[in-house]
Amino acid sequence: MMIRRATLNDLDAILAMIQRDSFTYQQEDPGGREDYVRAFEEIARDANNELIVAERGGEIVGTLQLTFIPGLTYRGGWRAQVEAVRVRHDLRNLQIGTRMMEWVIARARERGCRIVQLTTNVARVDAQRFYKRLGFEASHVGMKLTL
Amino acid sequence: MMIRRATLNDLDAILAMIQRDSFTYQQEDPGGREDYVRAFEEIARDANNELIVAERGGEIVGTLQLTFIPGLTYRGGWRAQVEAVRVRHDLRNLQIGTRMMEWVIARARERGCRIVQLTTNVARVDAQRFYKRLGFEASHVGMKLTL
Repeated sequence: MMIRRATLNDLDAILAMIQRDSFTYQQEDPGGREDYVRAFEEIARDANNELIVAERGGEIVGTLQLTFIPGLTYRGGWRAQVEAVRVRHDLRNLQIGTRMMEWVIARARERGCRIVQLTTNVARVDAQRFYKRLGFEASHVGMKLTL
Repeated sequence: MMIRRATLNDLDAILAMIQRDSFTYQQEDPGGREDYVRAFEEIARDANNELIVAERGGEIVGTLQLTFIPGLTYRGGWRAQVEAVRVRHDLRNLQIGTRMMEWVIARARERGCRIVQLTTNVARVDAQRFYKRLGFEASHVGMKLTL
């Protein structure tokens, strides 16, 4: 399995995984493809954002987004934040998520980050267990306000 | 009260508020000032990060950091993320936090964000109540891995 930066060619496979997700806080409206192409380009243009895919046998099997955030806390240390983690629904329990998160942790170290952080829906108990196995602590409450 | 972008002149007042915070996930080591100056400059240099202060009568009374994150979810909508929210310890219950968060919500709309998000320590029950009053939903678990 190869983990790499996404290209525009991967966009449809990524969107299929995002739109299938049943826990998305606000139900994802398929919307116009041009909105997603613009968003893809905004992510690609930003040196502190990386849209990642996992590829296996020529197919996209997972995705996530990494954001590197400078800050004053942690002695002025950077944070790596993970958003929009998805594994193809028919490929669960094959360690794809584990491999992706191990990649994230290595990438965060490479960028000199002091912390990796993410939020996951309170109802997604299996995901919380998964992240705890990787060493994450459920120390915070994630609060969202839709505008 | 004026809410504005921080300048390097505000750094010591901001650090005093950050370092006094008793809930910081990893106890903040005062460290070398040069680490914080570098971090300040990294934030200032990034068009998607804003270090904010609240000023009253010539004194810095509050601070927070805003990060604008592009993404594919929410139909390719931007997120506004709030970190490192602090109000001066001797000035609680004066609505400084409320005014700062109202400013954040307005700024997030101005930047075209679809969502405002933050995490707060699970033990900080008063903060969760505060954010709920502002319309936030405690829908997520915030997970952190210190590197």
